[in-house]
Amino acid sequence: MSNDKQNKLKARLPRGLADRGPAEIAATRRMLETIRRVYERYGFEPVETPMIEYTDALGKFLPDLDRPNEGVFSFTDDDEQWMSLRYDLTAPLARYVAENFDALPKPYRSYRAGYVYRNEKPGPGRFRQFMQFDADTVGSASMAADAEVCMMIADTMEELGIPRGSYIVKVNNRKVLDGVMEAIGIGGEENAGKRLTVLRAIDKFDRLGFDGVRQLLGQGRKDESGDYTKGAGLDQKQIESIWHVFFRDDWNDPKTATPEAEADTIDDDVRSDFGRGPRYDNLYFLKLVRGKMDGAGIFDEGLDQLISIENIVRSCGYGTKRIRIDPSVVRGLEYYTGPVFEVELTFETPGDDGKPVRFGSVAGGGRYDGLVGRFRSEAVPATGISIGVSRLMAALQHLKKVDTQPEPGPVVVTVFDSDRIADYQKMVAALRSANIRAELYLGSGKFGAQMKYADKRGSPCAVIQGGDEKAKGEVQIKDLILGASISQIKDRDEYKAAQAKAQYAVKEDQLVEEVRKLLEKHQVKWS
Amino acid sequence: MSNDKQNKLKARLPRGLADRGPAEIAATRRMLETIRRVYERYGFEPVETPMIEYTDALGKFLPDLDRPNEGVFSFTDDDEQWMSLRYDLTAPLARYVAENFDALPKPYRSYRAGYVYRNEKPGPGRFRQFMQFDADTVGSASMAADAEVCMMIADTMEELGIPRGSYIVKVNNRKVLDGVMEAIGIGGEENAGKRLTVLRAIDKFDRLGFDGVRQLLGQGRKDESGDYTKGAGLDQKQIESIWHVFFRDDWNDPKTATPEAEADTIDDDVRSDFGRGPRYDNLYFLKLVRGKMDGAGIFDEGLDQLISIENIVRSCGYGTKRIRIDPSVVRGLEYYTGPVFEVELTFETPGDDGKPVRFGSVAGGGRYDGLVGRFRSEAVPATGISIGVSRLMAALQHLKKVDTQPEPGPVVVTVFDSDRIADYQKMVAALRSANIRAELYLGSGKFGAQMKYADKRGSPCAVIQGGDEKAKGEVQIKDLILGASISQIKDRDEYKAAQAKAQYAVKEDQLVEEVRKLLEKHQVKWS
Repeated sequence: MSNDKQNKLKARLPRGLADRGPAEIAATRRMLETIRRVYERYGFEPVETPMIEYTDALGKFLPDLDRPNEGVFSFTDDDEQWMSLRYDLTAPLARYVAENFDALPKPYRSYRAGYVYRNEKPGPGRFRQFMQFDADTVGSASMAADAEVCMMIADTMEELGIPRGSYIVKVNNRKVLDGVMEAIGIGGEENAGKRLTVLRAIDKFDRLGFDGVRQLLGQGRKDESGDYTKGAGLDQKQIESIWHVFFRDDWNDPKTATPEAEADTIDDDVRSDFGRGPRYDNLYFLKLVRGKMDGAGIFDEGLDQLISIENIVRSCGYGTKRIRIDPSVVRGLEYYTGPVFEVELTFETPGDDGKPVRFGSVAGGGRYDGLVGRFRSEAVPATGISIGVSRLMAALQHLKKVDTQPEPGPVVVTVFDSDRIADYQKMVAALRSANIRAELYLGSGKFGAQMKYADKRGSPCAVIQGGDEKAKGEVQIKDLILGASISQIKDRDEYKAAQAKAQYAVKEDQLVEEVRKLLEKHQVKWS
Repeated sequence: MSNDKQNKLKARLPRGLADRGPAEIAATRRMLETIRRVYERYGFEPVETPMIEYTDALGKFLPDLDRPNEGVFSFTDDDEQWMSLRYDLTAPLARYVAENFDALPKPYRSYRAGYVYRNEKPGPGRFRQFMQFDADTVGSASMAADAEVCMMIADTMEELGIPRGSYIVKVNNRKVLDGVMEAIGIGGEENAGKRLTVLRAIDKFDRLGFDGVRQLLGQGRKDESGDYTKGAGLDQKQIESIWHVFFRDDWNDPKTATPEAEADTIDDDVRSDFGRGPRYDNLYFLKLVRGKMDGAGIFDEGLDQLISIENIVRSCGYGTKRIRIDPSVVRGLEYYTGPVFEVELTFETPGDDGKPVRFGSVAGGGRYDGLVGRFRSEAVPATGISIGVSRLMAALQHLKKVDTQPEPGPVVVTVFDSDRIADYQKMVAALRSANIRAELYLGSGKFGAQMKYADKRGSPCAVIQGGDEKAKGEVQIKDLILGASISQIKDRDEYKAAQAKAQYAVKEDQLVEEVRKLLEKHQVKWS
């Protein structure tokens, strides 16, 4: 313990948390700007709430019901009241609207980007702090609000550079799911757990495929590692009914495509990409089931809502290539009460190991008519969507829609004579006054180290003034962009000529002008 | 308990936390952009760390030593390790640099804006979540790094619109403070508590004035409410020595102003604003004390550092009107080891109650050579500054340097016939496709309510289509900007003529074009 080194703290972040460097920060800022622009155009306005709320105001709506109290970071304040870090942006919005109800326009359209926190076991791609970008319409029961959210998110994807056909906005309705479950005899409070197991099984189709889901709907499933997951315990007939509605592979009626939508109906490429047979419009099939199920009231209600959404988006020219009804969409969060949305990226890219990578879901949402009502005596219907910012960013990087090229660094003024720091700092100040990014080398390294530093910073040029130059009233400019390229030159004379061009003396009072010329020559932006 | 209303949750935020609306969000974004531009020009690059860190990595450096464990929000994760919400942006940066030491350029200039958290009793202007904007240079022991930070923050203030003379960057050095304390016989580990009490007393000069500080340096002080604060217990001679160095009112030597700095030396207006007599340059007085104190080694070291900073900033043209040595600056945080900075706004504005309001300190910082070294075997010197974003924003609002005018709202397409929602939504989609902010009224209110909604949203115009218009292939455009102005008109004929201009029919397929004309007429920006 007497060894000082042994007492040193280890510099590390808790798992599931990450630092972000300049390239990621810049790319995220540009992405958020684009989303913001689309949302503003749709008439949504910004509002922000703090990261901390009273625990009871947030409620417990996270998917993993098996572990109550977990999933959320909580602590008490001086008055011993429980507070939590928000786990999404929807629950705090509900609190905000309820608290400011009379002052807000109704319906109230708003958007916000912010970090949310989950106290979960972190894993690859699972973080304990991550950013969401939400948009919500509170105070409207109209399906036009849901349709608007779907069109807005489709516009957002395209404005971010994701081509039509490479994403799809999938729409379902919790009431349709509930109706089917009622029809197969697992309605009612006493079957809530079973219904959740069924929904989770359906939700796992993309990962487990036909057989896996069927096993989870029945007795259960053993995975590759030998772990056994208990199933919902449905009988064969119940499973077939669910299969019939959610995974039928012949739901296909080209006639339902409206003329406006024809131009962006799904094409063969995308169809095969989904691997579940062609589907123009699942409404066609859902309509066939209408009225044919026991206790079909809630099913029909959900179906009518889907038809309303379908009518609005199609009349606005959004075809099935952009927005599509898909009965297999579930969404994990417990507070959804009607339409649910999921935005899926449908293209594949080769991963680091060469295997194809699918980005899958990058946004999701739905209608949550009960959430604001927790605080108020009147019902306050609401709907919204949430973008997973980090996941969408990763997808954009793969699509090469994000500029990850680092910007050129600052001009570095080197220190030749440490007694003359003030002189060098004055040169830096002059460059900065002319809106040129510039800095003084502040370390204690010799000239070689200073050049290495300028290199690491990506500087376009270095400024040097030794005693000789000072005496002549000159400074040397070393062109580091040109310098990097001449190392390729083989011919000796050519090399020497190029080298002379890459470092040259200028009058001290011409420094700013000469640096500006160099930046212009290399097309480096400044200001 | 059977009454549902009684069971409703109360929608409220914990004290010391606040929501932010559109005007504040927009103003903050513009302010952060300006700061960012200045910092980039100085060669600083962005880096961001998460809100959560291991508690031991953050350390305990908050000013209020009386309450260890308080001041910070802490909780444990699944592995029972203590984590905390960051209380500033400096401690996490130290962790980041230590963790990524080999990969970073050295010296490493970086900046970041982010929320920090304090688990304190909130009060007026004291929040438990607030934003800081920090810039730091890690890996340089040179006073040029400290001087740079001072010049950068001065540039930032002016670029934000705070005129020269309305702010001042005050610079002191902990070593000077420590040297004086050693000289009056309260050096050494055993007097650490007494020194802290002395520093806090000096720090309270602006609030308590001469007498209050003298009492706190001596036996103690009773405030208006009768509360007694124990003093540092210095004797008369010790108090005089401190007074001599920190609060002398004749430190004034016009000769120290360099020619370059002459243009921005302090003028009479500002001088009287400080109320402590004229001060051109406190270095003059500090130099008089040099070598005359017992145990003056550390005092002289601090003084030499101040002289270095002074030389650099003056040679770069920053006079005493912008950056000034002020021995009474203390800064509360415990980790400072050398120069400390404080940016004070010096103007007064009438507050809500008519009494003059001083904004006081809006940024502060200093050198913290030991903080990164907690994690590493080698010493890693560092210096930086932190802007209190909310406080600075409040000051800018008072200076009318922030645009708090709300932007015009979206065009509202009203719903006359609820069966034709899809038709109305189509009009909205057409407007949005032309980059015009537009929305459909999504509520269930009648026409009057819809107009009130458009009014609340600040809409430039509303679009109306009833059955008659539909039959004629027309839509009505109601000019709400013009409409608002004609209510002033007294003359009946004039009013009727104006009213006709404020609502008119256009062909349905001319809607986008006609709305665009209206926006142009009223100079409403779109896109």
